[in-house]
Amino acid sequence: MPQGETFHRAVSQVLFISQIYALLPVSNIRSQQVQNIQFKWLSPRAFYSAIILILNLCEFGAVLNHVGKVGVNFHTSSSLALYIVCLLEHIFFWRLAFNWRSIMSHWHRVEQLFLSVPYRFYDEYKMKRRINIVFGLIMSSALLEHCLLLANSFHLSSLERTQCNINVSYLEITYKWERPHLYYLLPYHIWLMPMLEWLNQTIAYPRSFTDCFLMCIGIGLAARFHQLHRRIAAVHRKVMPAIFWTEVRHHYLALKRLVRLLDGAVAPLMLLAFGNNMSFICFQLFNSFKNIGVDLIVMLAFWYSLIFAILRTTLTIFVASSIHDFERKIITALRDVPAKAWTTEVQRFSEQLGNDMTALSGNGFFYVTRQLVLSMATTIITYELMISDVINQATIRQRTVYC
Amino acid sequence: MPQGETFHRAVSQVLFISQIYALLPVSNIRSQQVQNIQFKWLSPRAFYSAIILILNLCEFGAVLNHVGKVGVNFHTSSSLALYIVCLLEHIFFWRLAFNWRSIMSHWHRVEQLFLSVPYRFYDEYKMKRRINIVFGLIMSSALLEHCLLLANSFHLSSLERTQCNINVSYLEITYKWERPHLYYLLPYHIWLMPMLEWLNQTIAYPRSFTDCFLMCIGIGLAARFHQLHRRIAAVHRKVMPAIFWTEVRHHYLALKRLVRLLDGAVAPLMLLAFGNNMSFICFQLFNSFKNIGVDLIVMLAFWYSLIFAILRTTLTIFVASSIHDFERKIITALRDVPAKAWTTEVQRFSEQLGNDMTALSGNGFFYVTRQLVLSMATTIITYELMISDVINQATIRQRTVYC
Amino acid sequence: MPQGETFHRAVSQVLFISQIYALLPVSNIRSQQVQNIQFKWLSPRAFYSAIILILNLCEFGAVLNHVGKVGVNFHTSSSLALYIVCLLEHIFFWRLAFNWRSIMSHWHRVEQLFLSVPYRFYDEYKMKRRINIVFGLIMSSALLEHCLLLANSFHLSSLERTQCNINVSYLEITYKWERPHLYYLLPYHIWLMPMLEWLNQTIAYPRSFTDCFLMCIGIGLAARFHQLHRRIAAVHRKVMPAIFWTEVRHHYLALKRLVRLLDGAVAPLMLLAFGNNMSFICFQLFNSFKNIGVDLIVMLAFWYSLIFAILRTTLTIFVASSIHDFERKIITALRDVPAKAWTTEVQRFSEQLGNDMTALSGNGFFYVTRQLVLSMATTIITYELMISDVINQATIRQRTVYC
Amino acid sequence: MPQGETFHRAVSQVLFISQIYALLPVSNIRSQQVQNIQFKWLSPRAFYSAIILILNLCEFGAVLNHVGKVGVNFHTSSSLALYIVCLLEHIFFWRLAFNWRSIMSHWHRVEQLFLSVPYRFYDEYKMKRRINIVFGLIMSSALLEHCLLLANSFHLSSLERTQCNINVSYLEITYKWERPHLYYLLPYHIWLMPMLEWLNQTIAYPRSFTDCFLMCIGIGLAARFHQLHRRIAAVHRKVMPAIFWTEVRHHYLALKRLVRLLDGAVAPLMLLAFGNNMSFICFQLFNSFKNIGVDLIVMLAFWYSLIFAILRTTLTIFVASSIHDFERKIITALRDVPAKAWTTEVQRFSEQLGNDMTALSGNGFFYVTRQLVLSMATTIITYELMISDVINQATIRQRTVYC
Repeated sequence: MPQGETFHRAVSQVLFISQIYALLPVSNIRSQQVQNIQFKWLSPRAFYSAIILILNLCEFGAVLNHVGKVGVNFHTSSSLALYIVCLLEHIFFWRLAFNWRSIMSHWHRVEQLFLSVPYRFYDEYKMKRRINIVFGLIMSSALLEHCLLLANSFHLSSLERTQCNINVSYLEITYKWERPHLYYLLPYHIWLMPMLEWLNQTIAYPRSFTDCFLMCIGIGLAARFHQLHRRIAAVHRKVMPAIFWTEVRHHYLALKRLVRLLDGAVAPLMLLAFGNNMSFICFQLFNSFKNIGVDLIVMLAFWYSLIFAILRTTLTIFVASSIHDFERKIITALRDVPAKAWTTEVQRFSEQLGNDMTALSGNGFFYVTRQLVLSMATTIITYELMISDVINQATIRQRTVYC
Repeated sequence: MPQGETFHRAVSQVLFISQIYALLPVSNIRSQQVQNIQFKWLSPRAFYSAIILILNLCEFGAVLNHVGKVGVNFHTSSSLALYIVCLLEHIFFWRLAFNWRSIMSHWHRVEQLFLSVPYRFYDEYKMKRRINIVFGLIMSSALLEHCLLLANSFHLSSLERTQCNINVSYLEITYKWERPHLYYLLPYHIWLMPMLEWLNQTIAYPRSFTDCFLMCIGIGLAARFHQLHRRIAAVHRKVMPAIFWTEVRHHYLALKRLVRLLDGAVAPLMLLAFGNNMSFICFQLFNSFKNIGVDLIVMLAFWYSLIFAILRTTLTIFVASSIHDFERKIITALRDVPAKAWTTEVQRFSEQLGNDMTALSGNGFFYVTRQLVLSMATTIITYELMISDVINQATIRQRTVYC
Repeated sequence: MPQGETFHRAVSQVLFISQIYALLPVSNIRSQQVQNIQFKWLSPRAFYSAIILILNLCEFGAVLNHVGKVGVNFHTSSSLALYIVCLLEHIFFWRLAFNWRSIMSHWHRVEQLFLSVPYRFYDEYKMKRRINIVFGLIMSSALLEHCLLLANSFHLSSLERTQCNINVSYLEITYKWERPHLYYLLPYHIWLMPMLEWLNQTIAYPRSFTDCFLMCIGIGLAARFHQLHRRIAAVHRKVMPAIFWTEVRHHYLALKRLVRLLDGAVAPLMLLAFGNNMSFICFQLFNSFKNIGVDLIVMLAFWYSLIFAILRTTLTIFVASSIHDFERKIITALRDVPAKAWTTEVQRFSEQLGNDMTALSGNGFFYVTRQLVLSMATTIITYELMISDVINQATIRQRTVYC
Repeated sequence: MPQGETFHRAVSQVLFISQIYALLPVSNIRSQQVQNIQFKWLSPRAFYSAIILILNLCEFGAVLNHVGKVGVNFHTSSSLALYIVCLLEHIFFWRLAFNWRSIMSHWHRVEQLFLSVPYRFYDEYKMKRRINIVFGLIMSSALLEHCLLLANSFHLSSLERTQCNINVSYLEITYKWERPHLYYLLPYHIWLMPMLEWLNQTIAYPRSFTDCFLMCIGIGLAARFHQLHRRIAAVHRKVMPAIFWTEVRHHYLALKRLVRLLDGAVAPLMLLAFGNNMSFICFQLFNSFKNIGVDLIVMLAFWYSLIFAILRTTLTIFVASSIHDFERKIITALRDVPAKAWTTEVQRFSEQLGNDMTALSGNGFFYVTRQLVLSMATTIITYELMISDVINQATIRQRTVYC
């Protein structure tokens, strides 16, 4: 069996960390063998994930109850959306966990082709390192965002405490500020705080991790397209036998099947992630026109969160579209095949590359290519300009009074 | 003659039921033989449909007269639009009835290919069951919608009666509430009510049925594309003689001709249905921003109607776009044809599949593929955001006073 | 020389009539021989056209002067736009007149192919009759529009005369109403009226005629594509020698060259006509939301003018896109060529038809296909919704007071 | 070595002039030999460019400081945007300078093909003359714009001086008016003025020069595509040996590689230039709806600047899209290759031309073709209409009071 860097091994650590946050509860995720992966209803991981999911659902119920009381406004609707999106992401990852074994097995079989002789010479893509860098970068930025939002909450609630002379402890007022939907249902206890904070983390984690996961998938696939391209580039302008091109084309077809399989499997996560990112950016940009307070920490948390969302979304599109970029490079390489070596096989390959679109596509709804950045930007600008009217009529530029 | 499930037999029951609502007045619609179908001007069905159509036109005249008196406002314009759309649908179905015999004959001839030996082994699509499920689901939901709207009317008119101390019977006030355009022309009689309610049903029925009919057409065509794909998938990676591919390609061409024929025949219905669904969703979403009353039953009727319209439209697009999905699958299968079996015929087939678009298209105006969902959603959101200005300026959040 | 209906002969009468309105001043336009057509600077037609153009320019100067005095508002800006568009159309037709001889010669040479033996059997398109019907329909509707607008002016000016007790003759007040920019420069004389009315006609004529001219070009080209399609359809499923397909492809290439030549020649007219139609429809729809007066004749003139513009634009797109429709039909016919007759020539033909776009295109800016209707409609609706805000804020629902 | 007009020699003078404005600091730019070009950190040009860049950065710091004090408003945000765009352009040209030698070497190697025998007969494109005309036209118009803006400043500041009876010299008040951000940091001295004006020029120059530079690149590439097209057109309908087509295709591939290299190199400049042009046009059009003063010179400066931006952008698109236009012409020429000469090579060439898009593309974000004009225009109109609401609500039609 050939040795090399498989996607399963490259991504297992990342997935293990997210299992701590109750996502993708499959057993033996860090096993060396793909066959050991399995989803068991009665495993501790599934149990842990189920408990977290149920607790989150309970808190969502409390939020619904709270919204029913105070009515739908800008603040409650955004917190509702956050809960709905994150719960759906938990559920979609759970759904993915059922199929993770078969997906990884298929991927493993395809990867065997690319770990054996001709391709292993072209393995300079460093999939594992890229996955780790992307994960480290995104998730540490997300942690920083979480801390900033927390600091923001502490700051605002302590302001409220000072201004209104409320005679409760520092932590309790923060609890009330952060979780108004729980405050009257679940009286404040000091030992409740860490557990609620952990729940909060499991809710916040998937928002950034879904993008990160899509990038990992993109890197894993791009690594193989990169090897295929390198192999074709290595015989640039050489006359190769027909059997070479037949083989290359079959490997390409195997990759295409893998892309289709994964596209189907991550489609709900993808549609959710892109939709959520776009609406979040629109919503925050919209808020940026209004008075967002004069406190430094409020400003910092707000702008950091907005810029992080924009950069994360752009990075996701760039990484995911690299599959398509490599395909364009393969087409270009095929144009240089010399006339003598131009057989029916190469022509078929060339035609297929010219006609089919290889990209993550959210099950055919939209294709993740570089041009998506431009069209998302145009849509966001258009929506901002439309909403800006509303602002003009309703701008409230007053300093918030807390009591 | 080969035995099997033809589209004519699968859909005949559904069409028979809609004949009760005066649509598609062709004789012998439930006959086993396609040849027996015919449109006769002097048949009882044509006579019945004509009477219903004339009565509806009369009521439309009354509505026009009423609108002329009270002027065009939001309420009257929406009721005008409903009448115009439904009358046009009645007329388009009548127009389809003229050609139904020739369409069904053509379809029957094409289906003979797919009921004979190689294809009948791949007949697991269960066309008839799918048609019945779709029809049952959509039309029972539509019935529930109708009942909710009726209950809404009863509720509102009884409120008016109570609040204003009007001394007329319960039914009469409902009659006045529901049909203000008829109330002064046609005095209230108890025996008028069932007839008017029936007329009302014949007006309401086509709105949901047109979507349902388009889905039936989509299922009928997709069943054949499914068989074609299954036949090609069955010889996956096998070397087949050229004659096999010639035959498959000819069957594909026969299917394409059928799709074109039907696309032309149902184009007016399709443009009307999609246009109507989109404007209805826009209009109701727009209303949802305004105060729609605090009564439970009013809320329920409103939201049920809106969500039903969204789901129905989405389902229609998904079902109708399944033709295109199967075609994509056939292309993918062709990519795996081995080099030895790659003849001019297969290449021609592959090129044709790559270049041509097979989908219902409303006579070339737009193609019903999965991406239509996204572009419709974007358009609806854009329009909503534009209109939301108007709301901001004119929001009337007052409890409706009935007298 | 083969006998048949050439485009030159079919369109000569239409062009002769527009020469009366000072458009396309080429000599011998009704000659049987294309060679006799020529543009002479010193011919009476060029002289007449030049005088009309100079007079129109003078009136445009007076309008500019008037606008400079009263300032730019809705009314003056729309009348400015009308003058600019119509003067540009006069100039573009003049520019076309220089090249008309060479265009017609080229067209005549290409048409010789389609008037000789195999094609003349398929000549049931009736180009001349279609051109005459379109011209008759459009221009008589335009005349009716002109009369309505005139009646409107008479009506409004007589209202002003009555209400304000102005002691001038009936015609003079109309003159002042219609031509406020001339009234103080050119005192009223009875014998001035016919001449000014004629000038007015030469300004109004090109607005409708440009659409009509584009339709004539479309019909002329479609007639030949129709013959080509009929010839291919006549050998449906027959095995034809390679020489047949070579010939057909060469004829197709000759037609493509003709389309390109004409596309370049009429591009400025096309861009102007489509841009003008779209902005006119937007502008009138926008006006329709405002109070347009309660007089029957004002209403009639307004709505007739709006509906005529919409129908004329739609008809232009349909007629001009028929070239593209015939090309799609030729592709479909090629799919049925039997395997035996599938030579390199047919494949080349099929590939070219699949890849290239044959349609009038305004020199590559946009393609006139059926889908243009949908995208124009979407753009118009979007713009209307945007502008509708402005209306909400500035609606003036007052009866116009004339003095 | 073949003699002829290379892009390096054609553009060297233009680049030399921009080095005066501290752009693209490479040594020996006017050398006859491409090999002599090099970027040295310690050359006088790099030193000069560095000083200018540092001074500009300092002034930008002063602007930031000023904006921090007076707050972000329409005026300061537009001046901020100008500084950011121009500094980025300086930096991107600096980045281009590192690679200029290798880009020019590659280009030179490709050009050798087109300076030797078959192509040199078709060299009527006059690259150098076109580059000089475009540069002369654009940069002299830009100079005129600069002078108008300067005159505008003089005029407005002298108005302020007169109206407010400020007792400072004429130049000092202009200095304060033009550079409010420097006035309190750097007291007025007469000998400072020329230096600051020069700095101002180096800031203003790149805004127009970037468009001009893109046009030069476009002309340089189009010249070669033009030669290729002329060579193919010269053998129109002749039967050429396969070797001819192999050679032509290889030359085409070499050109494609060159286009890709340059597209990557100028992508940041291109995205910046197009984004800046579009936002500038939107911004100025938006200002045009507001009162822009009644002084002739203010009006003139404003409208000249707006119209210049529109024409410059349109011209840039037209020139850059000529590459794509020539490619379309080559496809058309290939359609006429006679059946006998239709070999696999020609078919490959034809397929590649049909499938690939050859155009400057800003690294794949958007393609610069003629249709870009239409889509930019639509976007600008849409944005204008959206913003026009804001105007309606906030129109301030008052004469500016200066003190």
